Amino acid sequence: MSLVVVGSIAFDAVKTPFGEREKMLGGSAVHFSLAASFFTDVRVVGPVGDDFGDAEYEVLHSRGVNTDDIERVEGGQTFFWRGRYEFDLNTAHTEDTQLGVFGEFDPKLSDASRSAGTLFLANIQPDLQRRVRELCDGAQMAGLDSMNLWIDTARDSLVQTIGVVDLVFMNDAEIRMLTEEPNLVRAARKVMEMGPRVVIAKQGEYGAALFTESGFFALPAYPLETVIDPTGAGDSFAGGFLGYLASQGEGAAEDDTELRRAMTYGSTLASFNVEEFGTERVSRLTRDEIDARFEDFRHITAIEGVPAR
Amino acid sequence: MSLVVVGSIAFDAVKTPFGEREKMLGGSAVHFSLAASFFTDVRVVGPVGDDFGDAEYEVLHSRGVNTDDIERVEGGQTFFWRGRYEFDLNTAHTEDTQLGVFGEFDPKLSDASRSAGTLFLANIQPDLQRRVRELCDGAQMAGLDSMNLWIDTARDSLVQTIGVVDLVFMNDAEIRMLTEEPNLVRAARKVMEMGPRVVIAKQGEYGAALFTESGFFALPAYPLETVIDPTGAGDSFAGGFLGYLASQGEGAAEDDTELRRAMTYGSTLASFNVEEFGTERVSRLTRDEIDARFEDFRHITAIEGVPAR
Repeated sequence: MSLVVVGSIAFDAVKTPFGEREKMLGGSAVHFSLAASFFTDVRVVGPVGDDFGDAEYEVLHSRGVNTDDIERVEGGQTFFWRGRYEFDLNTAHTEDTQLGVFGEFDPKLSDASRSAGTLFLANIQPDLQRRVRELCDGAQMAGLDSMNLWIDTARDSLVQTIGVVDLVFMNDAEIRMLTEEPNLVRAARKVMEMGPRVVIAKQGEYGAALFTESGFFALPAYPLETVIDPTGAGDSFAGGFLGYLASQGEGAAEDDTELRRAMTYGSTLASFNVEEFGTERVSRLTRDEIDARFEDFRHITAIEGVPAR
Repeated sequence: MSLVVVGSIAFDAVKTPFGEREKMLGGSAVHFSLAASFFTDVRVVGPVGDDFGDAEYEVLHSRGVNTDDIERVEGGQTFFWRGRYEFDLNTAHTEDTQLGVFGEFDPKLSDASRSAGTLFLANIQPDLQRRVRELCDGAQMAGLDSMNLWIDTARDSLVQTIGVVDLVFMNDAEIRMLTEEPNLVRAARKVMEMGPRVVIAKQGEYGAALFTESGFFALPAYPLETVIDPTGAGDSFAGGFLGYLASQGEGAAEDDTELRRAMTYGSTLASFNVEEFGTERVSRLTRDEIDARFEDFRHITAIEGVPAR
């Protein structure tokens, strides 16, 4: 199944204890689509300004991502985010956000995007997410991400939007916040009661947990000695997850084993994403590297042991 | 191999959002020995006051724990800890600590304890830990736990003590603090460079990670809907871990698969510990319940799926 993602396309300025970049390609839809592109055909939808040039398109095109539905606003500025991380790389400190063309974003989707089999609503305003979900009436499977900002300012709308998707990807703290339930198992069940059949709790350096009606699965993060820039890790996770799931066709989201493999591909893509700044690592990633790390995950999680490669 | 644990024996007063207890049996050596008692013969070493009565001994005896080396100080008071937890059960807030007889603790070990094959140095002052390690010259395998207090006040001594044990059990934040290294993989390697061949990073609700020279293994915590009292979870983890390892005899600590099973038994015992206050749940636990939860762990961690029971 083809996959369409709607979300932010951005320039990021990031400073970590390991270096900095003044202006690099970023945004949730970009990180998602690059990660998903290893598994299936991906279309990316989002607005950019006329500062968005050939070099940025080329990053997407070189991974085969279809950019026909990127809306380029003449005279506009691409969404800009400036943030820094201290040694605790789990927390991003935002120093500047300039919405630019993203402030007026009114998603326009081509027929090809509307009829994609799988839809990912990256972290944007929940009313907008719901409108896109309604437009994409061809999508058999839809997932969303969200954040504390929308829980604070648009909770009712977010709950409505959660009600029309199949999979929810959120940080564990945000799942607790949304449901006002400190126990994550109960909190995930409360999210499922809103509609979705799959809830994925992202846990940063601790990995991720998968909740479905029938089961629970948890996967640690890949043990990295060098984490350079965590920006986009969650979107890379969702991209690897949904990209793999879409590639397995209809019904994959109801198959517990496919969901576990999707968790592992998601964690694999997230682990590569954080090894360098922005999209630098994933841009030159290979399928062989992905498959090797997937095998590593089997090794590091097997209680009864799996021979190392 | 038999197992001896040296550490605190205590009365705890605990308040959580789910209830409270004014005075219950606790202490690191107690939680450890109850958990380990399901796997091997356990001897517990530590001081108590004359407020420590038959009911307390009975909890240990009913699990077959040998209490010959519990030193009962006439006129003394048993170590007392009062703490509370908010909805974030990861953080204990200490409200009162009365060292009592523990303030003058000078470990005296019988020949039987000195010659036990496995030794666990629960979280006590590192000089004291080192003295006990020297006394127990029969121990082929020794592990220790420690805490931020000793990193702050007795760092050099703690590093020396780490140098004479085989396994270190510490919270991940404390491993980072001890090594001044924010990356956990590097931090664990620094601890191994101090001497031990196995480092276990306890991660609370996220589970635990195992580091050896040759490999890495991570296990999520058991997904519980009801966590009543996390006091003693880390010691129950270490007890399940070392109890199982001791039961497998010499060389088990060098066997990667045995270490992974030990991680799983440790996590299993910790998960039962937190289901009720203090020692209430583990006191009436059965080996069948342990084995069933071990199987659950196989199910919830298998990427390729393991049929549910």
